[in-house]
This record gives sequence, C-alpha cells and structure tokens, in this order.
Amino acid sequence: MRRSERIAIMTKILIQNPRMLFSLNYFAELFDAAKSTISEDLSLIKNTFQTFNEGHILTLAGAAGGVKYIPFLTREKILEDLEELAHKLQEPDRVLPGGYLYMTDIIFNPIFANKIGEIFATVFSNLEPDYLVTIETKGIPLALATAKAFNVPLVIIRDNSKVTEGSSVSINYVSGSTRRIQTMALARRSLQPGAKVLLIDDFMKAGGTAQGMQALMAEFKAEVLGLGILVGTVAPQEKLVDNYLALLELEALDEKEKNILIRPGEWIKKGDFTC
Amino acid sequence: MRRSERIAIMTKILIQNPRMLFSLNYFAELFDAAKSTISEDLSLIKNTFQTFNEGHILTLAGAAGGVKYIPFLTREKILEDLEELAHKLQEPDRVLPGGYLYMTDIIFNPIFANKIGEIFATVFSNLEPDYLVTIETKGIPLALATAKAFNVPLVIIRDNSKVTEGSSVSINYVSGSTRRIQTMALARRSLQPGAKVLLIDDFMKAGGTAQGMQALMAEFKAEVLGLGILVGTVAPQEKLVDNYLALLELEALDEKEKNILIRPGEWIKKGDFTC
Repeated sequence: MRRSERIAIMTKILIQNPRMLFSLNYFAELFDAAKSTISEDLSLIKNTFQTFNEGHILTLAGAAGGVKYIPFLTREKILEDLEELAHKLQEPDRVLPGGYLYMTDIIFNPIFANKIGEIFATVFSNLEPDYLVTIETKGIPLALATAKAFNVPLVIIRDNSKVTEGSSVSINYVSGSTRRIQTMALARRSLQPGAKVLLIDDFMKAGGTAQGMQALMAEFKAEVLGLGILVGTVAPQEKLVDNYLALLELEALDEKEKNILIRPGEWIKKGDFTC
Repeated sequence: MRRSERIAIMTKILIQNPRMLFSLNYFAELFDAAKSTISEDLSLIKNTFQTFNEGHILTLAGAAGGVKYIPFLTREKILEDLEELAHKLQEPDRVLPGGYLYMTDIIFNPIFANKIGEIFATVFSNLEPDYLVTIETKGIPLALATAKAFNVPLVIIRDNSKVTEGSSVSINYVSGSTRRIQTMALARRSLQPGAKVLLIDDFMKAGGTAQGMQALMAEFKAEVLGLGILVGTVAPQEKLVDNYLALLELEALDEKEKNILIRPGEWIKKGDFTC
C-alpha cells in the first residue's frame, strides 16, 4: 500500500471525527503497517495542514497517546466567512414586520452552520467543555456544528417540559423578542451535575434568554465556561449577561427603509482573539 | 509539492463538502499543478475510498465537470451502526412514564447524528431532493446531518408561527404522542414552490405528524420524494402514511418490566436496499 493511499484514508477518518483521539496502533492495524510508518504519514498530514491553514493535527506521546484533528481557522478565514455572512444578512428583504431579522435560511443551511460551528470552535478553542448547550430552535444547527468540532454531546433546552424526556427542571424568564414571560425546561437526565458547559445561541438583544440559560445551568450546578452568539445587537449597550462573544454585531435595522447594518464583532481585531 | 500532500488537502476539502462539485481547475490552481496530475491524484483517492468502503468519489467529464464526494455506506457498516444504536436504545432506564422512549441523548450526540445522517443519505442516495424537511425539535440534528450529506438546505417546520420568520402557512394535525390537536407552521419564504423534498423525523407511531408534514408540503406544492424515520413502531401496523422507511423498528416497550425491543428495519435485508 502506498503512502498517499494511507494518507487519503487517515485524513478522512481524522476530519470526520474532530478532537477524537486515534492511537497509532489503530492505523497500524488498519493498514498492516509499522507504527513508525504511520508516524511519518501523520507528520506529513500535520505539516501539510499547517501550510494550507487547514487546522491542527495534534500528536500525543505515551501509552495513552495518539493523534487527533483540531479544527482551527485563521483570523483571515474567519473574517472572510463573517463578512460573507454579514453581507448576506444585510439583504433588504430580510427585514420582517416588527423589525425582526430573517436569518433562518442561513442558520439552517448546513454549509453556513458548519462554518459558524468551526468559528465558535476556533474562538473557544482554549475551553474544554463537557457539553454544548443551546435553547430550541434556531440555535440548534449552530450548536450541533460546534459540538461536533468539540466532540462533545449537545444539550437542548426546551421551551417547556416534554413527555418524551422525563422529569425536568424549568425556570421562567423574560425574552427580549416577545417581551413576555416564558418558560425554559431541561430534562434532569440530560446533564451531569458539575458539568462544564459552553452556551451557544443565534441571537441576543438584551440577553434575557441568555440570562435564563445561565440560571438554568446554575440549577444543574453546571459551570458556564462561555457564551457564544451568532448575532448580538449593539443596543442596548447594557446587557443582562457579561462575557459573551457575538460573532456578528447588528448596529442598525431600519424597518421602514429596510436598511440593515451588520459587521463582524470587535473581538476579531484583538491580538489573540481566542477566549 | 508531493502527491501525498495534495492528497491530504484534496481529501479534506472533498470530505468536508459532500456532493459539492469542485472543478479540476480549482485544485490545479490551488496546488499550481497540471490538470493531468490532479486527475491522477483523484483516481488514487477514488480507488482507495472504494477499497476501504469510505464512499464514492464521482468525477464528471466536460466543461461543467469536476469531482465530488458522495457519502455511501456498505450494508455491513449500516447494519453494524444500527445494531449499536438498537443496543443503546434498549437500555432499561430509557423507559419513561407513559411508555415513552428516551432517545434525546443519542439524537443530540453529533457522532450518532452524523452516522444516522450518512445512513439516510445512503438509503435515499437515488433521490435528488432540493431540500431536507423536518419538524422541530428532535428531528433537527438527524435532518441537518442528512442535509449536509445531500448538500441541500434544511427546512424546519415549527410548532407555531414565529415573529422571526415572517408570514407562514399553518395546518392542524393530531399527534400520536400527545393525542391532541396540534399546529405546525412553515414560513412562506422557506420553500420554493414546486420543490422536491425529503422528509426526516425521529419517531413515528401512527403517522399523524408525518401525515401533517405531507399535507403542509402539499400547501407549498412541494413533491415529497421520501420519508425517513429513525425509529418506527411496529404497532399499529396500519399507518396514516405509506412509503416511509424506518431505520429501526420498535417491536415492544413494556413500561412495567422496562423491556424494550428494537431492531433494524426489514429493508436492510433487501437485495438493493436503496430507495
């Protein structure tokens, strides 16, 4: 078997399973090759990915060692993707009655959802969450893509208790978009107590929903490591939660003139933009 | 640049973008290589994937030609994955009060969701949907993974009309799980009239929800190409919809004894199991 054949299969397996650790033995047995050969193959993949900015290949030495693929985008790539997203989100026919912004087609598009997931995985790459957490419905594709990049389960907070999920903990909160008291609920069995979680949602205005998510996490004694939002509004400047990261910022939305102004968040300009 | 380096990058790009067509020129420019060289590289990837049952690499000749990766699993691999899923779903503590089956942790796990998406993409590989359609909430991860494999947008039917999605079409239906009249709604702008759609959901008993989805698709003049379900119940034998494919069949669930019996659907035994 030729090196380039092994490289094709190893690349596929690593890419399809981000952050999953594969032992060198696994590949050695798969290809009936020496571990030293596999090791050389992996060095080649690692260096090539580095040259082309296609993410990191991490090799861990020792008995519990192995290799894994860490999705990681460059600042240039993130900026390019966010500017493309901002451009699309500024299309005038996205303005809905009531001054809402139509984003569903983008969020539910697997290509955009995966791009956004990889961006979240990059900016939060220093965190080691046990779970990704979101609230139904529009955050789900983004959180799922991020969970895949982190190789952790996704937990979805529901808008009320469901018979198909058993006993649950629920809280009330005031949502910014409907300006009404709403409920969010999470099945007791869906989260281990003391878990470390990363919260993801699609949109944040005042932060009522995000605050609710944090309160619900407290009920599960979960430690919130971070909060990632696709689009955050600039106003109100004072939010109900601190320490969130909005990939994009909505500066203005004029319902009558159908003008929308969205730009990448200021964090992208920081020297080290990872959280 | 060495062949194995090009192979690593080409494999990554193709795998991350299932069913997306890349021209040979795209790769030739990326690597500053001759098209004949790229063509040889792609043959090698194609043959290697074939040998290892890692899906199809399809090359299309001509001016509009290029190459794409088609996820495709073997019967053996599908059976292995479904038996693993069935085994997990039969854990006694999944029986919930009311005789419901707890599946959320599996459906929301990105690894399982992607496996299920690739299985749907394989069994429905002869179809060419314009959209994947599901209904919130539990079908979403499965439908998103399937949409990714088909390289088409996902459309999510909501449980009522949302201010953030503009004008919508809604219908009433009777859900099997709650035995109540419920509403499902879909934003007008989310689906082009005359579109071809593939429906995906996580669970089906009598088929009330599936029937509702079909009725809603009729409102959009959409052509339903197929209906894929993760778990279908054996009883009642008579469903409200025809021509569905359930990856797994729930034969029995004894709430008191906490016995669950789930097995891969009979379709897997057919000579050609694709739809």
